[in-house]
Amino acid sequence: MYGEIITIGDELISGRVVDLNAWYAAGRLTATGLRVIRVTSVGDDQESISKVLQKALKDSQFVIITGGLGSTDDDMTNEIAASALNRPLCLDEEMFEQIKDYVALRGLKMSRAFEKMAWMPEDAKILCPKENVCGFSLVEDRVRLYFLPGVPEQMRYLMDEIVIPDLLLQCTSLPTVRHRVLKLYGLNEPSIAEMLSDLPEKSANIILGFYPRFPENHITLSLRGDDQLSVAGELDGMEREIRSRLGSFIFATGDQSMEGVVGEMLLQKKLTLSVAESCTGGLIGNLLTNVPGSSGYFLGGVIVYSNQAKMDLLGVSKQALDAYGAVSDPIAREMAAGVRRELKADVGLAVTGIAGPEGGTKEKPVGTVYIGLAFKDKTFSGKYRFWGKREQNKMNSAVMALDWVRRVLNENPFLPGL
Amino acid sequence: MYGEIITIGDELISGRVVDLNAWYAAGRLTATGLRVIRVTSVGDDQESISKVLQKALKDSQFVIITGGLGSTDDDMTNEIAASALNRPLCLDEEMFEQIKDYVALRGLKMSRAFEKMAWMPEDAKILCPKENVCGFSLVEDRVRLYFLPGVPEQMRYLMDEIVIPDLLLQCTSLPTVRHRVLKLYGLNEPSIAEMLSDLPEKSANIILGFYPRFPENHITLSLRGDDQLSVAGELDGMEREIRSRLGSFIFATGDQSMEGVVGEMLLQKKLTLSVAESCTGGLIGNLLTNVPGSSGYFLGGVIVYSNQAKMDLLGVSKQALDAYGAVSDPIAREMAAGVRRELKADVGLAVTGIAGPEGGTKEKPVGTVYIGLAFKDKTFSGKYRFWGKREQNKMNSAVMALDWVRRVLNENPFLPGL
Repeated sequence: MYGEIITIGDELISGRVVDLNAWYAAGRLTATGLRVIRVTSVGDDQESISKVLQKALKDSQFVIITGGLGSTDDDMTNEIAASALNRPLCLDEEMFEQIKDYVALRGLKMSRAFEKMAWMPEDAKILCPKENVCGFSLVEDRVRLYFLPGVPEQMRYLMDEIVIPDLLLQCTSLPTVRHRVLKLYGLNEPSIAEMLSDLPEKSANIILGFYPRFPENHITLSLRGDDQLSVAGELDGMEREIRSRLGSFIFATGDQSMEGVVGEMLLQKKLTLSVAESCTGGLIGNLLTNVPGSSGYFLGGVIVYSNQAKMDLLGVSKQALDAYGAVSDPIAREMAAGVRRELKADVGLAVTGIAGPEGGTKEKPVGTVYIGLAFKDKTFSGKYRFWGKREQNKMNSAVMALDWVRRVLNENPFLPGL
Repeated sequence: MYGEIITIGDELISGRVVDLNAWYAAGRLTATGLRVIRVTSVGDDQESISKVLQKALKDSQFVIITGGLGSTDDDMTNEIAASALNRPLCLDEEMFEQIKDYVALRGLKMSRAFEKMAWMPEDAKILCPKENVCGFSLVEDRVRLYFLPGVPEQMRYLMDEIVIPDLLLQCTSLPTVRHRVLKLYGLNEPSIAEMLSDLPEKSANIILGFYPRFPENHITLSLRGDDQLSVAGELDGMEREIRSRLGSFIFATGDQSMEGVVGEMLLQKKLTLSVAESCTGGLIGNLLTNVPGSSGYFLGGVIVYSNQAKMDLLGVSKQALDAYGAVSDPIAREMAAGVRRELKADVGLAVTGIAGPEGGTKEKPVGTVYIGLAFKDKTFSGKYRFWGKREQNKMNSAVMALDWVRRVLNENPFLPGL
């Protein structure tokens, strides 16, 4: 079964409000195995709403419409739907009783604005007779139309409790839909495309999607089928093929984040981590501490934004600073060793670089970043060149630094410095 | 002039991703005085894209299309547009050169995936010949079509720098639309509504909008008119009325951020800042260093996630930790004084609290946060209770801490601790 979503409101087409109702409805329908073919937003005007409704009756088997059911003058969906579908507007007694109860309970006064909500297109069926929520359904030319309020909580409630179950009743059998996400860091999109260019065609039913989610890249595998087991098996096979090509660049699946993966590894191996941040300015610590329970492995660190702070807090030597500059391999290593020592941690991680937009030189342009890592009896460092704006360079530096921890603890090969 | 927005991507109609591109484009077009009549999202398939393009050619004067311009196999907008508009796909030499430069500069290898991006419908004009950004425009039956990438940063850049100016060239006269944003911190929405309930009606043409932008609240003032001067004057009057009611809670206007405002004040007063972060884990440093030039006043700080680190790095006393616990007024003050001393800064700022979800007690539930500030001969501290999830509590703590710096430097009254 396939259908579409129509969201109504001037606030949507003027960009004042993000259309989270369309997003929610699309997600719930898709997760149920129903197919969404289109999402359309139009303003609160008769002509646009009529047009899009009539088009939907031609193209879809079901239509979810949200918005314009309230009591203010710009709420006109009931009238417009009635006129677009050539049905008279009738007073729904059940809805009217419900509104009267609501008004009485709250000691309010009945008004035209309240009554207005009870006038609906002929043969409309209230979605939720017991709750104080607008919303009705209609069947026109075998197309099921669901009119929901634009208030997100009410819309979501009706979507979950009424619309989805009602649609499922119409389906004799729904396919199984399975969805996987593989998260990559350290490869650009064209390289990923190239490395996957020889994927076997045998799983032609699997839809692959590629999504840059700065600074990560995500690959999605989606498959519909009738049998849960064979769907899972086919996805397993494809995931193996992708993993054999992209190897250690895949750092997580599903909802996991880089900082979550690194945290889990540290916890499992009973290791503690400390960070020395220069150009990232606290971002690595911030990411790490977004993970609940991170105090179990993250001891803290220092933000050493000035040379003085690097010397005072980490014991970085003035000679090395003078000889190599703050953005250099030796300083990254001294910072990593210093923060490990000062915080008595198992792993010391350091970043020093030029985030931009100022501060670049010919030898060390904006985006030049050194990462240092002290673990066991070794201290590593490496140079990278990022190409973004200030915040992007900070983010890439932070995630690359965390990826170093992941690779060292996994005994994975390192990413080549650039 | 009126037009529409088409966003392309399976991730949009399946609800995996919120359509922020449509929201951004709609907002920018509307703010410019152009009218958006419809927003449509369709999946990555030939039929849907063709249909919606052809409908747009009938209904609109301009069309913004985003998505499907990348290098992977699911990026098919170029081909589909060519076929829907009956134009052959041609290799654009300028774009191809640009891609070759990009590949060479980064030491990558030219591949089919890269080359693909240079094939465009006949007579397409590249939007941005100098930057590494896909995107082209076409004119078909006097309708202007702009094809933009789905990557939000690139899409926004092209929208602002190329598409809007190009559309404005086509308009003979547009009404003046002026838009102001006042940013507030420390008041909830119902309180703001209450405090503004007696605003004078005289500026009835001004549309006021209220938008929670966690943890801030934004008030927008919008006015359309033919005369620039009188529009500005009316807005000035309304802004004065609002400021007289909300006073020091308004921390910024327009594009300014809390960290930007604080940075400017420090720079102007030639003061330096250092931070000691416990529950915020580096977030304050991260926010401060998102501002270009922040090294001019931000010296750095420490992330002291463990009690040991608080003692080792800041000289916080064991007795105080034992007596009051790490989340307490005395510790917030010791941290602030300690980080000011260790980093030789003018201002020392500290946060210690319980971000959650674990770690709360009856006396100190999740969301309990102490802020400390050392400046001149005084050390302040104060207690707050935030009610969000972990990341929200971190963000509220960080912004409240920065707001303390703003209020102290402004000699504003403090926010009451809760």
